[in-house]
Amino acid sequence: MKISIAQLNYHIGNFEKNRELICSAISKAKNEGSELVIFSELSVSGYPPLDLLDHSDFVRKCQETVGEIAKECRGIMAIVGSPIPNNNREGKKLFNSALVLSEGKIIFTSRKSLLPTYDIFDEYRYFEPERSFSVFNFGQFRIALTICEDLWDEQQFENEFEKSRLYTVSPMDELAVQSPDLVINISASPFSYSRIETRNNIFINKAKKYHLPVIDVNQTGANTELIFHGASVVVTPEGEIAEQLPFFEECIRTFVLEDVISGKNKPVSARPAEIELIYKALKTGIRDYFVKMNFRKAVIGLSGGIDSAVCLCLAATALGNENVSVLLLPSRFSSEHSVTDAVRLAENLDVKHEIISIEKPFTAFEESLSLLFSGLPSDVTEENIQARIRATMLMAYSNKFGHILLNTSNKSEAAVGYGTLYGDMAGGLSVIGDVYKTDVYRLAEFINRDSEVIPRNIITKAPSAELRPGQFDTDSLPDYNILDSILHLYIELQKPVSEIIASGLDKEVVRRVIKMINSNEYKRYQAPPILRISSKAFGAGRRMPLVAKY
Amino acid sequence: MKISIAQLNYHIGNFEKNRELICSAISKAKNEGSELVIFSELSVSGYPPLDLLDHSDFVRKCQETVGEIAKECRGIMAIVGSPIPNNNREGKKLFNSALVLSEGKIIFTSRKSLLPTYDIFDEYRYFEPERSFSVFNFGQFRIALTICEDLWDEQQFENEFEKSRLYTVSPMDELAVQSPDLVINISASPFSYSRIETRNNIFINKAKKYHLPVIDVNQTGANTELIFHGASVVVTPEGEIAEQLPFFEECIRTFVLEDVISGKNKPVSARPAEIELIYKALKTGIRDYFVKMNFRKAVIGLSGGIDSAVCLCLAATALGNENVSVLLLPSRFSSEHSVTDAVRLAENLDVKHEIISIEKPFTAFEESLSLLFSGLPSDVTEENIQARIRATMLMAYSNKFGHILLNTSNKSEAAVGYGTLYGDMAGGLSVIGDVYKTDVYRLAEFINRDSEVIPRNIITKAPSAELRPGQFDTDSLPDYNILDSILHLYIELQKPVSEIIASGLDKEVVRRVIKMINSNEYKRYQAPPILRISSKAFGAGRRMPLVAKY
Repeated sequence: MKISIAQLNYHIGNFEKNRELICSAISKAKNEGSELVIFSELSVSGYPPLDLLDHSDFVRKCQETVGEIAKECRGIMAIVGSPIPNNNREGKKLFNSALVLSEGKIIFTSRKSLLPTYDIFDEYRYFEPERSFSVFNFGQFRIALTICEDLWDEQQFENEFEKSRLYTVSPMDELAVQSPDLVINISASPFSYSRIETRNNIFINKAKKYHLPVIDVNQTGANTELIFHGASVVVTPEGEIAEQLPFFEECIRTFVLEDVISGKNKPVSARPAEIELIYKALKTGIRDYFVKMNFRKAVIGLSGGIDSAVCLCLAATALGNENVSVLLLPSRFSSEHSVTDAVRLAENLDVKHEIISIEKPFTAFEESLSLLFSGLPSDVTEENIQARIRATMLMAYSNKFGHILLNTSNKSEAAVGYGTLYGDMAGGLSVIGDVYKTDVYRLAEFINRDSEVIPRNIITKAPSAELRPGQFDTDSLPDYNILDSILHLYIELQKPVSEIIASGLDKEVVRRVIKMINSNEYKRYQAPPILRISSKAFGAGRRMPLVAKY
Repeated sequence: MKISIAQLNYHIGNFEKNRELICSAISKAKNEGSELVIFSELSVSGYPPLDLLDHSDFVRKCQETVGEIAKECRGIMAIVGSPIPNNNREGKKLFNSALVLSEGKIIFTSRKSLLPTYDIFDEYRYFEPERSFSVFNFGQFRIALTICEDLWDEQQFENEFEKSRLYTVSPMDELAVQSPDLVINISASPFSYSRIETRNNIFINKAKKYHLPVIDVNQTGANTELIFHGASVVVTPEGEIAEQLPFFEECIRTFVLEDVISGKNKPVSARPAEIELIYKALKTGIRDYFVKMNFRKAVIGLSGGIDSAVCLCLAATALGNENVSVLLLPSRFSSEHSVTDAVRLAENLDVKHEIISIEKPFTAFEESLSLLFSGLPSDVTEENIQARIRATMLMAYSNKFGHILLNTSNKSEAAVGYGTLYGDMAGGLSVIGDVYKTDVYRLAEFINRDSEVIPRNIITKAPSAELRPGQFDTDSLPDYNILDSILHLYIELQKPVSEIIASGLDKEVVRRVIKMINSNEYKRYQAPPILRISSKAFGAGRRMPLVAKY
């Protein structure tokens, strides 16, 4: 039996586009002789629809679209994901469902049982968990049709405080007693560089445990901060990966189920290097933010430092160099190399650039505030004014020409609050807000892998905000290698302070850094959405109280 | 038997303060002859602790603090709320618990079964729901000890799309078969002006349904955006309110249980008017944000309009007029009355004010950008530059003098995106971001109830942003009465567009307004935290995807 996996890029609430995508894949799969084509979780609505699910007309539109797609399933079956109303008297109003469509009808419905409600996931906010389980009979095959987390009941968390069995139910254990021949898992798994292997192991372990082939269908593309890497897999009952779809690309792949079961396919295990995956994830994230928001052009403030350099390279690749403009906004404190390095980078990328000094507005602010501030020493106030003038310039460019400002703050500085709210923290989308400074350097080296795109001096010079004479990041922060180690232990792994210190890091430095993290929640609260590449990004996946003492 | 209700104001993660508060109330209750003193939900940790619960050392601190409090329970019992680890092999790592403390020990534990996971609530993110139920034997009494949502299984939602039975379990039905004599409910119910009566009815209906007295213990004070109104109640088995604690105030109230059961207490039903409650809620919200963040002073940009006027009055009451400063930041487009009205208000409140023209920086920006913008007509760009200059001035004042900038945007303009990101949308806390414009007028009238604090002209003049000559809000927006009607139907009640139109509002206006709401999610994403007074505020309680087509 031929089966097709449709790994596609959906847009939340864009029912027309999602329907067209799905219907054209159905037609392609049919042409390839498939009997079944499988789409990913909530493919009809796009994932995650969030509080749009609180609107009854949004859910009605999902149902209408499912009906329209069902009509296209002539001589082929399709499995799509959609929210459907819970018709029981009690419980949440919806189920997160996998629907089997055939000859104009929904012929089988599977409903998600394990509802991830941690990190960026909020599924119990909307969905009632399924408590009963049945396999779907498809010709001679009995299919265990599961939805994403349903197979993740034994996952390991990076935060050791989490239980290794988060749920009290194992859907596959329930389904296994009904002797299925095949496991299908439709998912919407967002990218996290540290979880790629974990994810594959979930499918490999389930395949081996039940000695069944497992077909995983993930989506690709990005919706705001969440980037979906695709990389759908088909796993043999022996736990070999028989098919692996590409990372970060749409793809329809047709295969013969019997070949997978018999182990006829050669195992595949191609996986790009981590830094390449991060690069591709960020590129996808930028591209889809613009495509799906119906934007075309971006503007970036280029400082001559490495953060804005890497962001510019990513934006130019994602959007096309002709769609990206940069402003260089030097002040009296800017070193000469910051302008020349930035210009060289813009020229290397053939990106339009303008140089505007911020001197005039800075002087005007100084004069206007002189009476009020008279006799007081210059401090962080004047540094912030410069950063805010730059943001105002960039936003003026954005407003006048319709370019979206991309934010270029990295995760290390966002963590410790080394940035100016309404200044360098401004922008419509944060490109590298989930990338630690040390990984920004790795990205720069990756970008320069074939030739020097980013001028060497940008990579080698000591990081500086250039907001006062002779300022360097290391005046206020520990060395980035040390800083990033602490940040990773505290943010991603959520280790207690005592354990972080016990790992060999300096006690005073650890305490100071963690205090900086906690006391800057208020700044991050107002940060733009951040493209997520780690298992714990700032933003919707990390919810800290502001008025807390901790 | 004497029982005391302790309605207190906790601070998230401030274990020392929370312990002192609780211990001093235990001592007071003991002095009043009480046998039992009851504290509210998660009183030990503060509510809501959010992702601090992902940190094992935070939970350990909760347990240590419970132990310390238990030691103070000599000759009196106390019920406190705390997260406690789930020692089962499976499930979420914590239970949201009510602990009965006596003579140094935890003698009974009740664990929350219904975990609100909607609007601002995320409890299933952290807690495992309890599935078994037992009453607590206390002398001759059998107590059904419940936690907040446990009694809300039959609540009605304002969004009619929600089921009226959100849960598949009714903890009180389970407990009722064990013949309790008394229901205790410890809660952390945030204020929402439309839910006060709903809340009381929950307790009244449960009392009547099971013919049992119900003791509800709510907290007061505010944690960032959430404001807790207190107003704890004791309800007789007949459903009369026998005791009602004050709104927005700490209070320890001791009563005789037998008197409540026998109906000896006279029913009470004092409830301040809605607008007074909103006023007090906002005042509490401002005060506690400052107290708990360890701030003292605020700065506000005073435009001469009604929004900043009302915010200033609230801030002056909450923080003391000596702790509030205002900046008047007129431009070439400011009318004369905007300055004179603002000055008069500042004088009425005896608040320090400074006038700084934004003309110099504005001209400097125009000149600096003139080459880039040459030949292009003036548009929203120049309007936004003015708003951003003002934000930069206010933040400079904030940085130099350590005053926190209060944001003065109202809910109507936040809804339709009538504001400038990094401009008038800036600030550490949004005071009236959950107050519709028409309610801002009601607040102004309430503030002026005894004498003219806010100059009449501020209330009567037509609203204008004064960012270009002769500009009025009504140039871009429908009349606020109409706008607010649409907003309320769409945001709070989540009505479908078709129903909003069917309610008699103009089709084109409704469509335009809803389009504005949806297309401005990106702006609200970066807004400051908003003091919540409604059942659906912008911020953590309303999670909309940015890249959605809807």
